[in-house]
Amino acid sequence: MDESPRLKKQKIAEKGQEKVDWKKWKAERKEETKKLKEATFLKTLEKQKKKLREEEEEEKKKQLQEEEIKRRGRPYTVSVALPGSVLDNAQSPELRTYLAGQIARACAVFCVDEVVVFDEQGDDTKSVVGEFKGIGKKGEACVQLARILQYLECPQYLRKSFFPKHQDLQFAGLLNPLDSPHHMRMDEESEFREGVVLDRPCKPGKGSFVNCGMRKEVQIDRQLQAGLRVTVRLDKSQNPESRVQKGRVVAPHVPRTESGHYWGYSVRLASCLSKVFTECSFKEGYDLTVGTSERGSRVDSVTLSPFKHALIVFGGLQGLEASVDTDQNLDVTDPSILFDHYLNTCPNQGSRTIRTEEAILITLSALRLKIETAV
Amino acid sequence: MDESPRLKKQKIAEKGQEKVDWKKWKAERKEETKKLKEATFLKTLEKQKKKLREEEEEEKKKQLQEEEIKRRGRPYTVSVALPGSVLDNAQSPELRTYLAGQIARACAVFCVDEVVVFDEQGDDTKSVVGEFKGIGKKGEACVQLARILQYLECPQYLRKSFFPKHQDLQFAGLLNPLDSPHHMRMDEESEFREGVVLDRPCKPGKGSFVNCGMRKEVQIDRQLQAGLRVTVRLDKSQNPESRVQKGRVVAPHVPRTESGHYWGYSVRLASCLSKVFTECSFKEGYDLTVGTSERGSRVDSVTLSPFKHALIVFGGLQGLEASVDTDQNLDVTDPSILFDHYLNTCPNQGSRTIRTEEAILITLSALRLKIETAV
Ligand SMILES: C[S@@+](CC[C@H](N)C(=O)[O-])C[C@H]1O[C@@H](n2cnc3c(N)ncnc32)[C@H](O)[C@@H]1O
Ligand SMILES: C[S@@+](CC[C@H](N)C(=O)[O-])C[C@H]1O[C@@H](n2cnc3c(N)ncnc32)[C@H](O)[C@@H]1O
Repeated sequence: MDESPRLKKQKIAEKGQEKVDWKKWKAERKEETKKLKEATFLKTLEKQKKKLREEEEEEKKKQLQEEEIKRRGRPYTVSVALPGSVLDNAQSPELRTYLAGQIARACAVFCVDEVVVFDEQGDDTKSVVGEFKGIGKKGEACVQLARILQYLECPQYLRKSFFPKHQDLQFAGLLNPLDSPHHMRMDEESEFREGVVLDRPCKPGKGSFVNCGMRKEVQIDRQLQAGLRVTVRLDKSQNPESRVQKGRVVAPHVPRTESGHYWGYSVRLASCLSKVFTECSFKEGYDLTVGTSERGSRVDSVTLSPFKHALIVFGGLQGLEASVDTDQNLDVTDPSILFDHYLNTCPNQGSRTIRTEEAILITLSALRLKIETAV
Repeated sequence: MDESPRLKKQKIAEKGQEKVDWKKWKAERKEETKKLKEATFLKTLEKQKKKLREEEEEEKKKQLQEEEIKRRGRPYTVSVALPGSVLDNAQSPELRTYLAGQIARACAVFCVDEVVVFDEQGDDTKSVVGEFKGIGKKGEACVQLARILQYLECPQYLRKSFFPKHQDLQFAGLLNPLDSPHHMRMDEESEFREGVVLDRPCKPGKGSFVNCGMRKEVQIDRQLQAGLRVTVRLDKSQNPESRVQKGRVVAPHVPRTESGHYWGYSVRLASCLSKVFTECSFKEGYDLTVGTSERGSRVDSVTLSPFKHALIVFGGLQGLEASVDTDQNLDVTDPSILFDHYLNTCPNQGSRTIRTEEAILITLSALRLKIETAV
């Protein structure tokens, strides 16, 4: 049957309408897609913001923790051990000195509390005890490294008291200073200061006088032998009229344990690798020990358990294997069994060997957060 | 009423029984506590074991990932930028050279692909373009640093071709070698080798001869100008009878992008800080930029987004503030706005300042895993 023109018209009109709807539909879809995209974009933004907020919160938490530590003090210590033989790797007396300085700075930058220099030449003589005296040829590198480490750790104003001219220090002028917080400037205000007991008569019942690198001398709470190095806590209220300041002698760990200050490192010599462990100066011994080697396991997957006294040990030119080999007290050949962790702290290294002085910075940087959050 | 003696006895017996039960009870408790302790201990052990297993799995995953990368190649690059002025911080020409060497090694150890040496002296002259020639007094440190960086990156067997005697290299004997994987020993087997095109006639239709530091010379697939440095992929099958080996020239990035090898770094000079960004040698530019400063935010809480070309920028003696100040193209005073991230990579530092050469090792160690896992 034929359709009437009206019908046709209507159909066309319908089509027209259909057409209009189609356009509308497309526009709507477009609008929807746009909205969807916007929503997704907003969501992404929201996510990013959330992440930022979380990061900021994390940051804040960290800062609070840090302030807490500052308030409460740092309860743990970190020790680093390395063979003195690393100095023999230097090409001139100047570079030998510079290398010792690099090690000192690496330890200070990461708040290391003790540096142990061990002899990996093997003969367990008493070559490394006492005031660094009477040392034969073999021990020379160990003793020179220890001496330069001590020299740099000592605040400038005390050096003339503790470091007479010595050929080990001939190129000390080339050393970069540690610039640690306990190296106070003359007019710096500080609760604690390092000082040397002066050779000055003091009245009975009164304390000795101490040079703490300030304009005034400090009279401490007791009489001590002249020439001793002491850590002094200055009294909170001082009489500005007085010719001296007042203070009390405290143990060297007090700035760290009570106020969380980094207070330099002590230096110890060990005549072989095993004595690094057995002659530990903390009566509880080291309760977290880490050996380092490119043959260790990846540092990334390790978690450190809580500890009081951590020890991180580095090898020399031939690695810790050589140190173990020459140690008559050690029956093992695989150094890894000496440690709680044996770590490769620089996976995928782009050089066939990493030098010990580089490995110290790399390792301490890789372990920093793990150490801070272990306790 | 009085109790009969029998009753009393019974009670005592009861008491006695009670007593026995009490002992038993205590013993039982003890046993229980012991069991509990054992169980807890076992649980702890179990937990430790689980953790170990997890760590091992993590380790395995990592290794697989690494092998994957080795197979597939490394798609991204890492660039480091620093001011040449750091050399002026050294106390002698020998130490100046040594310092440049420290920087080169730090970059190689962490597989840095490009080192950009920028001038922070401020006058945007063309002092740093071309073949390191025609440099006035000011640019000296930049050019010397760049030259030593290039010298160390160049495999030993190519040095006489590319580094004629120069006073900047007077103390090159003191430099510690990079010992990167692309510094091949003579008999080392390798898919790729660096070489120099020899000045030797070659037949039309045949390729040039290249010295790749092997016993035999390499004939490449095309004729190139004598003296060019090229990266060569040696053909898999060689005729052992032939007097030459066969190989093809490839782009220098191929060992990295196709096989994941670290292949040394390129060196670029920039006449000011802003040109570090604008004269980027990757056409896409740097898509992840990190500035470093003790005033940055803690590195620990940062996550890096996926990137192709990362840039990490270090300041000199006066920090990045000084580099920004002297840059006439930069209107800002706060360096942080130039970067995607502005990071303190050594929170709680135990020295008032960290030297740039130390900061490179510390920062790259702190960022290594974040970089590896960002992509
Ligand atoms: C010159 S390396 C020793 C290289 C020696 N050939 C070896 O195979 O062990 C000196 C010291 O740096 C440290 N070291 C080097 N590479 C390391 C890495 N990837 N991870 C951790 N420590 C590393 C170790 O303490 C090592 O004993
Ligand atoms: C000698 S420092 C600059 C010190 C300068 N007084 C300052 O306040 O920035 C040289 C460079 O080492 C790097 N650096 C030093 N300490 C850093 C830290 N804690 N975190 C990240 N980078 C650091 C920065 O790149 C810095 O520009």
